[in-house]
Amino acid sequence: MRLRNVKGARENIAASQFVIHNPEEYKGKWRELFQNNNPIHIEIGMGKGKFIQTLASNNPNINYIGIEKFSSVLIRAIEKRNELDIENLYFIRMDAEEIVNIFEEGEVNQIYLNFSDPWPKDRHAKRRLTSKEFFGRYNKILKEDGVVIFKTDNRELFDFSVEEIPQANWKLKEVTYDLHNSEFVQGNVMTEYEERFVTEGKAINRLVAYR
Amino acid sequence: MRLRNVKGARENIAASQFVIHNPEEYKGKWRELFQNNNPIHIEIGMGKGKFIQTLASNNPNINYIGIEKFSSVLIRAIEKRNELDIENLYFIRMDAEEIVNIFEEGEVNQIYLNFSDPWPKDRHAKRRLTSKEFFGRYNKILKEDGVVIFKTDNRELFDFSVEEIPQANWKLKEVTYDLHNSEFVQGNVMTEYEERFVTEGKAINRLVAYR
Ligand SMILES: C[S@@+](CC[C@H](N)C(=O)[O-])C[C@H]1O[C@@H](n2cnc3c(N)ncnc32)[C@H](O)[C@@H]1O
Ligand SMILES: C[S@@+](CC[C@H](N)C(=O)[O-])C[C@H]1O[C@@H](n2cnc3c(N)ncnc32)[C@H](O)[C@@H]1O
Repeated sequence: MRLRNVKGARENIAASQFVIHNPEEYKGKWRELFQNNNPIHIEIGMGKGKFIQTLASNNPNINYIGIEKFSSVLIRAIEKRNELDIENLYFIRMDAEEIVNIFEEGEVNQIYLNFSDPWPKDRHAKRRLTSKEFFGRYNKILKEDGVVIFKTDNRELFDFSVEEIPQANWKLKEVTYDLHNSEFVQGNVMTEYEERFVTEGKAINRLVAYR
Repeated sequence: MRLRNVKGARENIAASQFVIHNPEEYKGKWRELFQNNNPIHIEIGMGKGKFIQTLASNNPNINYIGIEKFSSVLIRAIEKRNELDIENLYFIRMDAEEIVNIFEEGEVNQIYLNFSDPWPKDRHAKRRLTSKEFFGRYNKILKEDGVVIFKTDNRELFDFSVEEIPQANWKLKEVTYDLHNSEFVQGNVMTEYEERFVTEGKAINRLVAYR
């Protein structure tokens, strides 16, 4: 979903008060930024950010941080963020590979992965956000009772995850191959990608990983 | 795999010393039958019994019980059993739905399910050996640290199981969609069905369920 050369994207991001430009400096101190002790939920690969903005608006007592690699997408999230009158949502532009440099051990309470890039080639398996390499990182930053919630339309990526997550010593629950026809759809908030896939009649897979 | 009208099957089964005809009477007393305190591993739906006979021959310090519903298949297992000089293997002809009447709480140490009947129709889901109804039964008879090991070529049944088992409050580990190209193939003993599918180049799915 890289939108190439969005004009002025980098400049607008640099100027945005909702983007944290030096996230390493907040390691262990995110609650100071939010000025409260509420739980912190993050979304990795948030794209244009509809999902996390809806959650943040609906749950003022939870702090949200949206992480996105590409400026061209992040800028769309910022545009929408500017219209919201909330204080519990910030963004970081970064590659999630560096996430352990940003959050202290156990500093995060919940992680969302929505329609993550599939990286279909075997040799790119490590880049998948549900690889054991990434779960090793989540292991550090996530509080013991925290969960990772993963949705995807991509069955290959989902099957990979079902194999991989137990190997990373995490457990699975609430596994469904058809979220929108399952009991777990209650309270579900759709992402941009999800809306499109659901319109097309595609089944959405979802699981929750815990330790 | 029902072989219809195997001549004299019922009579031969009735006469076999390796078939337990009154299994309810052994409930809580299976170790008396084996005359030792070794762990008890059972296979449900063993068919012609190659798998469990190989395990029993290789592991004299484990007691094995093979359960099969149909006489016409069981008789084949008995024919092979007659040629083995081992004391750690018995058979029961029964429908596994009644299993809680046969074993005391925690009396079984491990359960194998190999290439179980898929029961593809939704209304027959309860009959699948990996349904939550069956896991409720396993919950009773299996010792706390015991596991259920499930192999199948049938992807629909496997996917059903991956959804269903966590809902029954069991956990998953060692999940693979291609056992014979995975690290879990080490020590794998093939069943009759498995040999056929592997020859045909079909992938075998396998998982381990635990609490
Ligand atoms: C397919 S899009 C899905 C966007 C959104 N979550 C949705 O469901 O509509 C995946 C997004 O994840 C971002 N992404 C992929 N890998 C990432 C990584 N390692 N770190 C940060 N963002 C990443 C991509 O740039 C892209 O915007
Ligand atoms: C497809 S065959 C597989 C046989 C063998 N496990 C193998 O892998 O070669 C399934 C077997 O399970 C038996 N079976 C199915 N449901 C059963 C039940 N509820 N109780 C006992 N046996 C059952 C069937 O009669 C059949 O022999």
